[in-house]
Amino acid sequence: MESPQTVAIVGVGLIGGSIGLALRARGLASQVVGIGRDLGRLEAARENGAIDRATTDFSEGVAGADVVVVCTPVSQIAHDVRKAAEIVPGSVLLTDAGSTKRQIVETVQRHPQAASLFIGAPPLAGSERAGAAHARADLFEDRVCVLTPTPFTPKDRLDRARQFWSDLGCRVIAMSPIEHDEVLAYTSHLPHALSAALASSVPAEWLALAAGAFRDGTRVAGSDTGLWTAIFRENRGPLLKALGTAQERIAAFKYALMTDDEDAIRRWWDEARQRRQLFESMPSAIDRNV
Amino acid sequence: MESPQTVAIVGVGLIGGSIGLALRARGLASQVVGIGRDLGRLEAARENGAIDRATTDFSEGVAGADVVVVCTPVSQIAHDVRKAAEIVPGSVLLTDAGSTKRQIVETVQRHPQAASLFIGAPPLAGSERAGAAHARADLFEDRVCVLTPTPFTPKDRLDRARQFWSDLGCRVIAMSPIEHDEVLAYTSHLPHALSAALASSVPAEWLALAAGAFRDGTRVAGSDTGLWTAIFRENRGPLLKALGTAQERIAAFKYALMTDDEDAIRRWWDEARQRRQLFESMPSAIDRNV
Repeated sequence: MESPQTVAIVGVGLIGGSIGLALRARGLASQVVGIGRDLGRLEAARENGAIDRATTDFSEGVAGADVVVVCTPVSQIAHDVRKAAEIVPGSVLLTDAGSTKRQIVETVQRHPQAASLFIGAPPLAGSERAGAAHARADLFEDRVCVLTPTPFTPKDRLDRARQFWSDLGCRVIAMSPIEHDEVLAYTSHLPHALSAALASSVPAEWLALAAGAFRDGTRVAGSDTGLWTAIFRENRGPLLKALGTAQERIAAFKYALMTDDEDAIRRWWDEARQRRQLFESMPSAIDRNV
Repeated sequence: MESPQTVAIVGVGLIGGSIGLALRARGLASQVVGIGRDLGRLEAARENGAIDRATTDFSEGVAGADVVVVCTPVSQIAHDVRKAAEIVPGSVLLTDAGSTKRQIVETVQRHPQAASLFIGAPPLAGSERAGAAHARADLFEDRVCVLTPTPFTPKDRLDRARQFWSDLGCRVIAMSPIEHDEVLAYTSHLPHALSAALASSVPAEWLALAAGAFRDGTRVAGSDTGLWTAIFRENRGPLLKALGTAQERIAAFKYALMTDDEDAIRRWWDEARQRRQLFESMPSAIDRNV
């Protein structure tokens, strides 16, 4: 573990706030600086203990940092990373917490200084509750964090990023930005899209008769609109493919229903049931949050 | 409340077992008789306190009952109701716990004696865990129970059914069997179908990167295959319509993604989010189980 350091968090919402709480709870930072546009919200995060110091001045906020973690919406991350890279010295680690990676990493790569400082790193954690008020120091405990280095990422930066995220409690793995986005389209973005499709399919006047299956199936449909609009747009290629897979599954089920083919219905359900059981059998599958 | 009575439960799984536990916990029955095909499983239910007495002899089991609750798979309920009606005296209340109603009620109606004793009554409760071992005395507390009388249902039988299910803790409402099936296709059967479509869309080798959205979205995909195959077949007309609605929602989203129409993506998500928030604002929405 490195000696305590100054960490700047750009965007102190649920994820940024949870990083701050975890850093402070684990004694991993001498100072946590929160950077944002809304001083009132930043002050609330400071009162909650997520950050030590709040500023709306980006340059001033990142200037003295050893680590800068960008937690803004995915559509803004590359911009913020490049902006930080122009201010901080070459010893700094730049990382992020965005749920998509290909576009972000490609944009950062075109900026040589940013490219040498940055490692994309979305931890697979979150909640349908947005904002620092819902931040939790244990949000990253035992969660997977996917580092997305490129062939141009310096090895020492990769090692530091690995250390930073595992210090926060994550299980760190690495894959390419493109592979990351293909996988997350299926494992996270598709579940969100289907959750919303389900929520808006049920007429409002029938909601009183909805129960547990609807409740759990639509939980993440309550997530922040801006956040998810940005994620869907950034990852629309892989997500369209994932939606196509789901459409094929639904069409196969409809055909089995239309022909009242008991064996086909049974096989269709069993395949899904086995996939779910495989998921349940994996370590800490049930505790994982978003 | 009526004086303690003998209740026969045909099919002692999750629902039947929970009815037994609730009857006994609330002192609503002098005796609970469990009827099934597997004496070993019935004995286990007896040891768990779900029933007082176990029998595999259908006729002997229902013979002395004041109330017979049929909790077999939906494809078998009408058969069991008619069989019971031929044995029991005319004073008995026959009811069931099946998640579909039109076909069951139509089949029962064609049998005059069964028609005069029977009220369809699926409580909106359940779990992805099948079997009496997962039964709970509080499974019905504050759950909605939909009685499905017909124009031919005697009023005293309707009153007794209302009493029986509300004694178990249900909030009792009534609607026609056809309306019931149309509503449940959207509020329960569609969420189950989409849950399975999601589960089998994600490749097994990527499950280690799935998290909370996948976990909650696929919970009910772990439900019993036989039970759900029967429900889907019984209610395939209304379910096909509900699946069509979900397909339209997914197609609209795909189109918004393909054209990278930020406003359309945002509106699409917001509509779903508002529906989910409306559901959350309803009394005890979040506690309701399946």
